[in-house]
Amino acid sequence: MDKSNINLTKSIKAMLKRGKVAEIKELLLYLHPADIAELLVDIQNGSQKALFKLMDYEKAAEVLDELEPEIQIDLIDSLAEKEKAEILEKMSVDEIIDLLQELPESKVEKLLKKLPMDELEKVKGLLLLSRDSAGGIMTTDYVYIPEDTPVPEAINMVRKFGREAETIYYLYIVDRDHHLVGVLSLRELISARRDMIVKDIMHKKVVSVHVDDDQEDAARAIEKYSLLAIPVVDSDQRLMGIITVDDALDVLREETTEDIHKLAGITAEEDIILTGSPLKAAQKRLPWLLICLFGDLIAGSVIKGFESTLETVIALAFFIPVLMATGGNVGTQSLALAVRGLATGEITAGNFVSYIFQEAKAGLIVGIICGAILTIIALAWQGNPNLGLVVGAAMGVALTLAALIGMIIPMILNALKIDPAVASGPFITTVVDITTLMIYFSLATCFFNLV
Amino acid sequence: MDKSNINLTKSIKAMLKRGKVAEIKELLLYLHPADIAELLVDIQNGSQKALFKLMDYEKAAEVLDELEPEIQIDLIDSLAEKEKAEILEKMSVDEIIDLLQELPESKVEKLLKKLPMDELEKVKGLLLLSRDSAGGIMTTDYVYIPEDTPVPEAINMVRKFGREAETIYYLYIVDRDHHLVGVLSLRELISARRDMIVKDIMHKKVVSVHVDDDQEDAARAIEKYSLLAIPVVDSDQRLMGIITVDDALDVLREETTEDIHKLAGITAEEDIILTGSPLKAAQKRLPWLLICLFGDLIAGSVIKGFESTLETVIALAFFIPVLMATGGNVGTQSLALAVRGLATGEITAGNFVSYIFQEAKAGLIVGIICGAILTIIALAWQGNPNLGLVVGAAMGVALTLAALIGMIIPMILNALKIDPAVASGPFITTVVDITTLMIYFSLATCFFNLV
Repeated sequence: MDKSNINLTKSIKAMLKRGKVAEIKELLLYLHPADIAELLVDIQNGSQKALFKLMDYEKAAEVLDELEPEIQIDLIDSLAEKEKAEILEKMSVDEIIDLLQELPESKVEKLLKKLPMDELEKVKGLLLLSRDSAGGIMTTDYVYIPEDTPVPEAINMVRKFGREAETIYYLYIVDRDHHLVGVLSLRELISARRDMIVKDIMHKKVVSVHVDDDQEDAARAIEKYSLLAIPVVDSDQRLMGIITVDDALDVLREETTEDIHKLAGITAEEDIILTGSPLKAAQKRLPWLLICLFGDLIAGSVIKGFESTLETVIALAFFIPVLMATGGNVGTQSLALAVRGLATGEITAGNFVSYIFQEAKAGLIVGIICGAILTIIALAWQGNPNLGLVVGAAMGVALTLAALIGMIIPMILNALKIDPAVASGPFITTVVDITTLMIYFSLATCFFNLV
Repeated sequence: MDKSNINLTKSIKAMLKRGKVAEIKELLLYLHPADIAELLVDIQNGSQKALFKLMDYEKAAEVLDELEPEIQIDLIDSLAEKEKAEILEKMSVDEIIDLLQELPESKVEKLLKKLPMDELEKVKGLLLLSRDSAGGIMTTDYVYIPEDTPVPEAINMVRKFGREAETIYYLYIVDRDHHLVGVLSLRELISARRDMIVKDIMHKKVVSVHVDDDQEDAARAIEKYSLLAIPVVDSDQRLMGIITVDDALDVLREETTEDIHKLAGITAEEDIILTGSPLKAAQKRLPWLLICLFGDLIAGSVIKGFESTLETVIALAFFIPVLMATGGNVGTQSLALAVRGLATGEITAGNFVSYIFQEAKAGLIVGIICGAILTIIALAWQGNPNLGLVVGAAMGVALTLAALIGMIIPMILNALKIDPAVASGPFITTVVDITTLMIYFSLATCFFNLV
């Protein structure tokens, strides 16, 4: 919630109300498309469309490039047919694809008719690719250079074809059949000797991704190798397109959001949850809630199993919340460490055992400290030394196990090639709840029967 | 846990054991520094250092650039004094800074002495800047061009000074006092007319960050405006350095990890937790655990407050786990949506009210569904219609409130300029636990007294 943006939104809204069209147009000229996009998200529906229509086609297309598909659709729908065609023509190919993938079949057909012939061919081919694949996010606007091009001619090609390209800083070298055979940075090209041909100065080892690879793998490769773009090839190593670092950033942000949501036990992409209907939102949250609901009924039946112990020492119930909650918290902490460690590649097949030991030790230390504190509190509160010992011991054991459960379950999922973030916090918490209550009531039963 | 890497690690380990030094050296020549870095993390201590020493200084410096500071320190410590100086000289300035910031005072002095004079000046100035600021992650290896330089000469400057620079694709234009006055992409420079001077073709509106700005703000600006680098300026608008997109990616990854950890109630940076001593790890996890421990003792005292109700209907205890857990889960889900929505800028000052309503409705729907299911189960399990109604009603009310608590608390923190991720899952869960138990036992007491 940027202060300057709040003010800008307010003054533009006021200008819209007072019909100060010329002033707004002037203001929009100076704003970056990303800022205008942010402004449009802030402004409510009616004015949103009015504002959008004040931009020229070029700017409008740039702004659309920055927006989420559902707002794009909304805005484009508000335009006259001729305007639609004009703006679509100016949008970048990968953004058009993103947009079309969100639309129902019937609308796609209508929009496709508005594209110029050469774009139509590109777009139709790309639409067949899976949305979450490298192919789904690549662009076909890149610079390629045949391998036997002399350096001066290559520089001319960059000048000429570079205008339309998403990046001109990496030049992809292809053979006669458009196989990717090398790469050259613009930096290397401009400092190369003028009498060379590109084949002799290019790098033959090129990091590339397959068109069917997951989009996240492509983004991670860009991140790992600090690239500005990565080429996308088919199974014959033919160059299909490129993914640029700014799109990789978008993918990583999306995937992070997905991971955080999954960790919290939500099973959907962000756009559906935050802006969709409440009914749909509820639907995406229910699966884990229901699984855990039944899981915690099992936890409840553990208590029922020890009903007579509880009836004898009703004070045992007072410590159920603190034991369940602390166990769940420790389990969630370990889960977060495991899931993030696996996602960033810090936990590997070579070192995961040491992480488990590390986690067990940390859990034990945390368990001893919390257990000791709880023993003292229970003693002071209930004045019952036996109860204090049972509660404290249960806490110590439960936390150590909770740390292990939170660390090991995502590792197992990962080894089984299942996204470890699926082991959501709610799931881990439920497993820990059942474990904790069993430990607690077993200890209590033994102890109070013995004493 | 990449399969090919596991095999590579194994075969290199075997080669090390059999002393096949020449073969390993050969292999290392073909590997990308990022891959070698990954390999080093995988391999255990002894062999790690042996392997590191097999690389030439150039490659070793590149590999160090890719590693976390603590492994860097470990590897550098294992080198002879002369080697240290050679490798340090080849590392990039921003990486040296990162490294020095992790070292104790005494070691910093020793290492600084090994730097060549010109680097020493740069490094000393940068060391004074805060670690998490834009200044702390910027590099001083950039290309700047005086404003009255003719285009052909500018191209020559790029060729000449570009060798050492982190990027040559953005050229920063400065006046006589090194004030940042404009920016030009290499793309624009090479397609510019040869008779122009850079001042006439540069962009005068430059997105920049202040040297004291948070590093996350710098990274978000790069992401938002799809930049390859962003200039860092002081309060007089003098150009101090640049931050490149690959460093922005690192920052965003770190900050995401921090957010996920904070959400799970862990109060530290990743490196300390996952690889530090278990005692330190425990220390970083205890603050929230203890706060929540006391919070859930309050939840326990709610039960104690209704002791007589519980003694009358002991079966009330069987449903404590499911009510607490489901309430906590819904609260955590809403928290995740709120924190992520705030971090990505989807929730703004203009639209946050609609998110709250949205969340209340979703909570209500989820509450009604879970409440109805629980009523039926309670009835079937305990054969007590009153108990069923109490449990179901409590569930419905508690979940609606949980959704609101999880959404509103991070929004309040955000408005108070506190990082909303601080409202960790454990904290929200504790607040929800207390609320849920109060609703449950109040309803139970009313209901069973009335009937």
